[in-house]
Amino acid sequence: MATFVLIHGAWHYGELWHDTAEALRAKGHVVHHPTIGGNEADADLRTTHAQACAPIIDYIVANDLRDVVLLGHSYGGTVISKVAEVTADRIKRLIYWNAFVVQDGNCLLDECPPPLAQALEKLAADRGDGGCVLPFPIWREVFIQDAPLELAEQAYARLRPHPIATFTDKLDLSRFYSLDIPKSYINCTEDMTLTQLPEFGWHPRMSHRLGMFRLVQMPGSHEVMFTDPVGLADAIDRAGRD
Amino acid sequence: MATFVLIHGAWHYGELWHDTAEALRAKGHVVHHPTIGGNEADADLRTTHAQACAPIIDYIVANDLRDVVLLGHSYGGTVISKVAEVTADRIKRLIYWNAFVVQDGNCLLDECPPPLAQALEKLAADRGDGGCVLPFPIWREVFIQDAPLELAEQAYARLRPHPIATFTDKLDLSRFYSLDIPKSYINCTEDMTLTQLPEFGWHPRMSHRLGMFRLVQMPGSHEVMFTDPVGLADAIDRAGRD
Amino acid sequence: MATFVLIHGAWHYGELWHDTAEALRAKGHVVHHPTIGGNEADADLRTTHAQACAPIIDYIVANDLRDVVLLGHSYGGTVISKVAEVTADRIKRLIYWNAFVVQDGNCLLDECPPPLAQALEKLAADRGDGGCVLPFPIWREVFIQDAPLELAEQAYARLRPHPIATFTDKLDLSRFYSLDIPKSYINCTEDMTLTQLPEFGWHPRMSHRLGMFRLVQMPGSHEVMFTDPVGLADAIDRAGRD
Repeated sequence: MATFVLIHGAWHYGELWHDTAEALRAKGHVVHHPTIGGNEADADLRTTHAQACAPIIDYIVANDLRDVVLLGHSYGGTVISKVAEVTADRIKRLIYWNAFVVQDGNCLLDECPPPLAQALEKLAADRGDGGCVLPFPIWREVFIQDAPLELAEQAYARLRPHPIATFTDKLDLSRFYSLDIPKSYINCTEDMTLTQLPEFGWHPRMSHRLGMFRLVQMPGSHEVMFTDPVGLADAIDRAGRD
Repeated sequence: MATFVLIHGAWHYGELWHDTAEALRAKGHVVHHPTIGGNEADADLRTTHAQACAPIIDYIVANDLRDVVLLGHSYGGTVISKVAEVTADRIKRLIYWNAFVVQDGNCLLDECPPPLAQALEKLAADRGDGGCVLPFPIWREVFIQDAPLELAEQAYARLRPHPIATFTDKLDLSRFYSLDIPKSYINCTEDMTLTQLPEFGWHPRMSHRLGMFRLVQMPGSHEVMFTDPVGLADAIDRAGRD
Repeated sequence: MATFVLIHGAWHYGELWHDTAEALRAKGHVVHHPTIGGNEADADLRTTHAQACAPIIDYIVANDLRDVVLLGHSYGGTVISKVAEVTADRIKRLIYWNAFVVQDGNCLLDECPPPLAQALEKLAADRGDGGCVLPFPIWREVFIQDAPLELAEQAYARLRPHPIATFTDKLDLSRFYSLDIPKSYINCTEDMTLTQLPEFGWHPRMSHRLGMFRLVQMPGSHEVMFTDPVGLADAIDRAGRD
């Protein structure tokens, strides 16, 4: 079976993959889910994008992982694109799950609808410690609208502040766009985090930047690791197979 | 549980919610489904949009309903937007189900693909009594294509002529667009009544005018109150919860 | 019940409908699935579009089929449009399943994303015998991404070279666009063969050229006759009923 490395999104960390990882292991896969730099408990919220990627590169190399199916969720898409530039010979396939496929030279916020980008920058400016926290109403209505209120609240309580610099650092992705690694895109059909307007949504706008890719879709919001981890594991399995 | 007020679309009336309302009551909710002005049996088909809204406002006030989850289907979206302007303090959430979110100053027909708008105006002009009736082939292929023929015919036989003035009256919605009430949008993924062309469809074109909203999707046509009332009640339940 | 004539797509032939046809027969329908000219075993790969259509017209007339529900898949859409011009009085309904609805005067490649059109022309030029064969990686990732690898390989082994002239012949469809035959469009929601970009995808871009049509959607790739023939038969049944 496959060796998966699952890379979480903003405000998340490795432990939040628990239910999804267990469901993938039940299918016979080996699953790793390390935490991006700046998303550890008590992290320095002044973390840059390069500092965010470093622990993932180290993890893959230190564990001598090979034939890796490397998955990134949301912001994690920017991380796996940069990690793949350094560890390409260890990667069998890249999976983007409602994940950013940033154009060369852009930062993550350049790819967001302007009102969202401005809101995130203001949230960070108001805190002043380099971190940014999602207000609960946005989380509940836009990120995890398919959850009962209790689950939305429980999941919200587990989130961490996110280092805003990882959203605003411009990314040199020239090498990434020259890599010849098979790619998949998982799209949750009710994901509203980037709106579903054709000029801003995840799929097909962001996904088609990958060139040829395998599309897998499933119902659900941006946060199905909480609302449907078994369904998510099934989608990852189909996205990651040969 | 919640107090729902379900507002029907054009050619419909309150009794046609029967199966959906029963399915919602089985979940423990209180459900009202009054009839819009001009859609009563033997209604005056010269009804204006303001006259259409009046009985709904009266119903909510006369029954002293509070914390209402107010849902509008299709044309009913224009009604709940106007009703919300007057009864905002009684409304907990607005749900638009494949419903018109008209731009301030427009009428319903301004939001339709021009061939549809012209066809509806011609149908009304040909009758000459202020009413408009859908031809069966359009109903069967575009409104209720997920029904067996017998169900499509039975449902068609229950429809009523609709007052065209409610489609052509320009709507002042400036107050509506300043209201701070949570909103949901239910989108049936096979709804073809406004076409599914990006410049005319229900979602994301119409839905995103709501600003932040909760998206719920389900399979089916514009008329799932006939073809899947239990599935519709489930979608309404998820759209209406806290 | 209905009389279906199922017309396959490029690289396919009549026998590949076997499982779908059996599932339709189990519902009580009569099902024919003849092979388009140029797709027979050992066919002349220099076949033109007119030569491709001739055996289908002959089949319908020779068998004196009436009240036919005529379905075309993919390239087969161009064939049923031309066949309908000649046999209109025998046809009850046309069904396009992720099928080309070519604009009058265009060829099939005019309707494809330019990179795809260029790739197909190059594949044919490289062979030099008039035929064109899909490379396996494109088949696996873009055409049949919902299959396990083994099924993707088995289905690929059954494909035949396709005559490129049927993609490049300009089609006079003026008569087709004046026909008054009911139409349906079946859209598989993960079909990626034309991309899912709004300016190139099957639905709504291609489908809306039919004018009024009945939309049926189902999950799956471009090749659900292999990955979900029972689901496909169910969609065809709903698309074809009165």
